[in-house]
Amino acid sequence: MPQKTLHYIDTNLDQFIGELKDFLRIPSISARQEYGDDVRKGAEWVKKCAEDSGLENATIYDTHGHPVVYADWLHAEEKPTVLIYGHYDVQPPEPLELWTSPPFEPDVRGDDIYARGAVDDKGQVHLHLKGIEAWMKTHGKLPVNVKLILEGEEEVGSPNLEPFVLEHADLLSCDAVMISDTPMYDYDMPSITYGLRGLAYFELLMAGPDRDLHSGMFGGVVANPLNALCGMIARMKDENGRIQLPGFYDDVIDVSPEEREEFERLPYSEEEFEKRINIPDTVGEEGYTDLERLWARPALDVCGIWGGYQGEGAKTVLPAKAGAKVSMRLVANQDYHKVEEQFRQFVEENTPPGVTVEVKDLYGGPPVLTPTDSKAVKAALAALEEVFETVPYLTRNGASIPIVADFEKNLKVPVVLMGFGLPDQNAHAPDERLNLKNYHRGIKSAALFLERFGTMEYIRS
Amino acid sequence: MPQKTLHYIDTNLDQFIGELKDFLRIPSISARQEYGDDVRKGAEWVKKCAEDSGLENATIYDTHGHPVVYADWLHAEEKPTVLIYGHYDVQPPEPLELWTSPPFEPDVRGDDIYARGAVDDKGQVHLHLKGIEAWMKTHGKLPVNVKLILEGEEEVGSPNLEPFVLEHADLLSCDAVMISDTPMYDYDMPSITYGLRGLAYFELLMAGPDRDLHSGMFGGVVANPLNALCGMIARMKDENGRIQLPGFYDDVIDVSPEEREEFERLPYSEEEFEKRINIPDTVGEEGYTDLERLWARPALDVCGIWGGYQGEGAKTVLPAKAGAKVSMRLVANQDYHKVEEQFRQFVEENTPPGVTVEVKDLYGGPPVLTPTDSKAVKAALAALEEVFETVPYLTRNGASIPIVADFEKNLKVPVVLMGFGLPDQNAHAPDERLNLKNYHRGIKSAALFLERFGTMEYIRS
Repeated sequence: MPQKTLHYIDTNLDQFIGELKDFLRIPSISARQEYGDDVRKGAEWVKKCAEDSGLENATIYDTHGHPVVYADWLHAEEKPTVLIYGHYDVQPPEPLELWTSPPFEPDVRGDDIYARGAVDDKGQVHLHLKGIEAWMKTHGKLPVNVKLILEGEEEVGSPNLEPFVLEHADLLSCDAVMISDTPMYDYDMPSITYGLRGLAYFELLMAGPDRDLHSGMFGGVVANPLNALCGMIARMKDENGRIQLPGFYDDVIDVSPEEREEFERLPYSEEEFEKRINIPDTVGEEGYTDLERLWARPALDVCGIWGGYQGEGAKTVLPAKAGAKVSMRLVANQDYHKVEEQFRQFVEENTPPGVTVEVKDLYGGPPVLTPTDSKAVKAALAALEEVFETVPYLTRNGASIPIVADFEKNLKVPVVLMGFGLPDQNAHAPDERLNLKNYHRGIKSAALFLERFGTMEYIRS
Repeated sequence: MPQKTLHYIDTNLDQFIGELKDFLRIPSISARQEYGDDVRKGAEWVKKCAEDSGLENATIYDTHGHPVVYADWLHAEEKPTVLIYGHYDVQPPEPLELWTSPPFEPDVRGDDIYARGAVDDKGQVHLHLKGIEAWMKTHGKLPVNVKLILEGEEEVGSPNLEPFVLEHADLLSCDAVMISDTPMYDYDMPSITYGLRGLAYFELLMAGPDRDLHSGMFGGVVANPLNALCGMIARMKDENGRIQLPGFYDDVIDVSPEEREEFERLPYSEEEFEKRINIPDTVGEEGYTDLERLWARPALDVCGIWGGYQGEGAKTVLPAKAGAKVSMRLVANQDYHKVEEQFRQFVEENTPPGVTVEVKDLYGGPPVLTPTDSKAVKAALAALEEVFETVPYLTRNGASIPIVADFEKNLKVPVVLMGFGLPDQNAHAPDERLNLKNYHRGIKSAALFLERFGTMEYIRS
């Protein structure tokens, strides 16, 4: 019975939050080369935190990119081994002017802590370390074997993690992978996520004349790369929200009747959703509900666009170049390599006269759809039910964690996605935050999971 | 006979070029508030230059924006009066990285002087002042009466010049207006321009959710303002290059059979045009030649676009906002106020669900189509023919000089557009330049025009 352990968590919460703030102060932005030293600082910080929590063999492994941090505790004989994965890198914080408090100066307001990385994923990495610490400080041991792997490149597509996993297959061998990098369905509605969308992300660079031209002297006969880019992007979806890449839907597994039923049981309110992000209407692919569109159907979004004069006033220029970042969320069983071919084919077939186009593949990650009846998933559901005192949900999620599919493929074990974020906590956006009550419940759930994973069978109510 | 005058120009050319460099060093960027002092410096520089050339009553008039500079010489009894107009402000120089030498450090390479404003319009203002100086230094007087008006807001749509002209109608009364702010048809092919396009320039601001969102967690049900903006811009033209604003072509005067014939006599080479700006193909409205599309048909160009993440790498964001600068070139007899209504109506009718749109009217200027048989036009043709030793052309131009239509309307005199730029001199773009041989011939033409305007009838060969 881990009552001592749970008590330790309750009484040390302020100390934990103080530590988390230190972690959040490190601007470990993996997408920006100039932050390389800060990303390494992040790695060093989590290594020390792992050691302090009682884990052993804490090691920083260099890669071709940012480092991987490993630690373990392997003295629970005859017990299974869980590999806890997370990431210590964060998204770029821009646009800075929209943050209420600076992104790397964590600020507690109400029940929330505000900072870049608060929910994605530093807070959720930290809660597992504190769950481990609580066991070690109160029992001097853990109820299962634990391996920890934390990477610094999740936000740039984890380019070096799969090679690392393949190279260190023995080191990482386990019975299940535990990841906390997804949201719960809602506050007081804990959930385990069994499906993730994949990602195919491209940069599209369109070039017209070899220099910027006077729009009066040349407008009307020279193809404008900005107009051309808009035209190409507009053609990527039809009026029913269907993506027009050739063969794009061929491999998509459609929403099953059972899933449709399970999703309909969730208390989704379109009105509340719209109000939460202040939009007049939801939109999307015809023939699907909002939850289906979010979780189980592909999507195409322009994440950035640029070209020509963006300053004050009116500059009458016909620009030489334009660019856009185009991302697609994929669902099982789409293959991002195939989608890249489809994207390149679409671009080639839709390039208008007078311009040239270059496609850069920025990254891709496969979608995930995992079985929901593994022992690890059941242990997680049991831990959540005990801590939150409610029956947890089985949900999917529209986001991507590239490494999940890789773990399943390469380690051949189930991956459990037990998240403690909330959908409106601005991951990837200004004023990112984490609810500290859920951080607290997350530490307890992490601690309880360790026990349940070694000891029990669970039947969901 | 102005041989002494022409000789003076030949022998003082180096001195003139040195002065022009001083003028070009002033970053008189009217679109940027932070350059206000530099714009005033530009006004002071041209005032002093006018005084040094022998003009009298040189005065800086303050306006609600940047100042107007006036000067005159009115002692040629019984002779007509020409009002020379130009502008001492310049376009913003961005993108700076594409300049070979810094935009405000004039650099002579080969026959060209490179700097922002070299051709548009400082060089062409200066050549008139030097033509005047040449007369004054060699004859102590001018062959006609001259008034000079130079403004500092041409590149932002001349918002304060028309009020100034109306308020100072007596001061500015004249028999013709002379403007050098257009290109010649080509090197060794001098021309007078009788048609200009007008301009309607808007900013389009599209808003979706009230903050940037995670594209995975929200993509598929939230309207993306970047996709929406691209869709709206794409719909502004059909596949034949026709602009889709309601009623847009109702007031357009079509190309006349005579003009079509005159344009066809010009040695336009599509291949050379494409090679000059390095494009694979010209494009444009079906049923018209390139010169007709450039000079006598409307055009729609996106001058700038922005939204979301523009940095390095892949940020998976569904952005809250996007914007674009959309400019339309208008032809006689389109009214830019009407076009604004048409644009707003189009935007309203084409706003997709889930986003809101704001239209800002940045500026408008009317198109021009002037008679080609005035005495002033004939004097200009005569001057050009003598200096260039070839028969000049009558052409139109795709660009806009907002004030030309205003002068015609308010002063009720013909406006002569005698330009010395070349089409590939990068007005409004990096590496703007002026051919110094044409600058030299321009000074002589300006000087000769003053004589011919007072003395002769001219029949074009």
